[in-house]
Amino acid sequence: MQKPSKQDFPVGKARRYLEPGPVVLVSSKWQGQANIMTCGWHTVLEFSPSLVGLMISAGNHSFRMIRQSRECVINLPTTALTDTVVGIGNTTGAEIDKFSEFGLTAEPALKVDAPLIGECHANFECRLREDALVDSYNFFIFEIVQAHVAETPEHPETLHYTGDGIFMVSGRIIDRRALFKPWML
Amino acid sequence: MQKPSKQDFPVGKARRYLEPGPVVLVSSKWQGQANIMTCGWHTVLEFSPSLVGLMISAGNHSFRMIRQSRECVINLPTTALTDTVVGIGNTTGAEIDKFSEFGLTAEPALKVDAPLIGECHANFECRLREDALVDSYNFFIFEIVQAHVAETPEHPETLHYTGDGIFMVSGRIIDRRALFKPWML
Repeated sequence: MQKPSKQDFPVGKARRYLEPGPVVLVSSKWQGQANIMTCGWHTVLEFSPSLVGLMISAGNHSFRMIRQSRECVINLPTTALTDTVVGIGNTTGAEIDKFSEFGLTAEPALKVDAPLIGECHANFECRLREDALVDSYNFFIFEIVQAHVAETPEHPETLHYTGDGIFMVSGRIIDRRALFKPWML
Repeated sequence: MQKPSKQDFPVGKARRYLEPGPVVLVSSKWQGQANIMTCGWHTVLEFSPSLVGLMISAGNHSFRMIRQSRECVINLPTTALTDTVVGIGNTTGAEIDKFSEFGLTAEPALKVDAPLIGECHANFECRLREDALVDSYNFFIFEIVQAHVAETPEHPETLHYTGDGIFMVSGRIIDRRALFKPWML
């Protein structure tokens, strides 16, 4: 699969890709081993600093890796990666090397040790900001410290998981800019 | 606008509607006054109890109402309500009665005082479960205690906000059930 050419992107605008609620691939690295998990349970929390919250179940192999390394990368797959997303979600990094198994490219990040997934449309490098709700709710708050986004397409088709093996697809847009005053945008 | 006929829905399956990341309308009631806000910053956190986290900016009129009443209803609008969603997001309950202004029907909930929005596809009655991150991150964790969902359509077209007045639309589905083992679903 092709790796899109990406550019630096303002971290304060990451909501453009994350607020719509797509399934993301979270990559991590700890003690020399890299891993990837799927995640549909996340939310934007702030523009500046650029904060995002992720629920990472303690049963995941990635949980300890991310907790110990205090870093991860949130990668945005498009529908071209649907079967890869499902495969990553249904396997565990305790048994396989997911980059190798799924033919994905681990690219170096700029500010964290966790790798970027080259084939994804966007990559958000994250540092752990707040772990107060990790023990009680598996809820991590990260700060996005560097962002990389493919220039095209402008509105990629993304996957939105409903459970039961069924994804909704987003991509078509509705433009209501005319209903906003400039300071609301 | 028509009000869909709704049925009780298992609270543990609310992720089906919330995990895809749609814009939701959050209704609240405090000291006799009801209000509605739009929210795109939310995440599922647990199946059972059925938990969901919402970032509600302290600048919103709804913030204090929800904090004081410790309740809200998360309502799911479809694309039929696009302009209503934008209007609710661009006005404040400090100045107008949003139910009246936007022609929405406040219906009684079963377990909370906050009203359901009759015109929405689904309504999730919520009680505040955890406020530890409210002061620092405006992040509320609610338990969904009762759910009401329209029986049709099975996959409604929902709105997913990107910022800048632009929504992505979800509705078309991709079915990958065949790639899951029964216990993964």
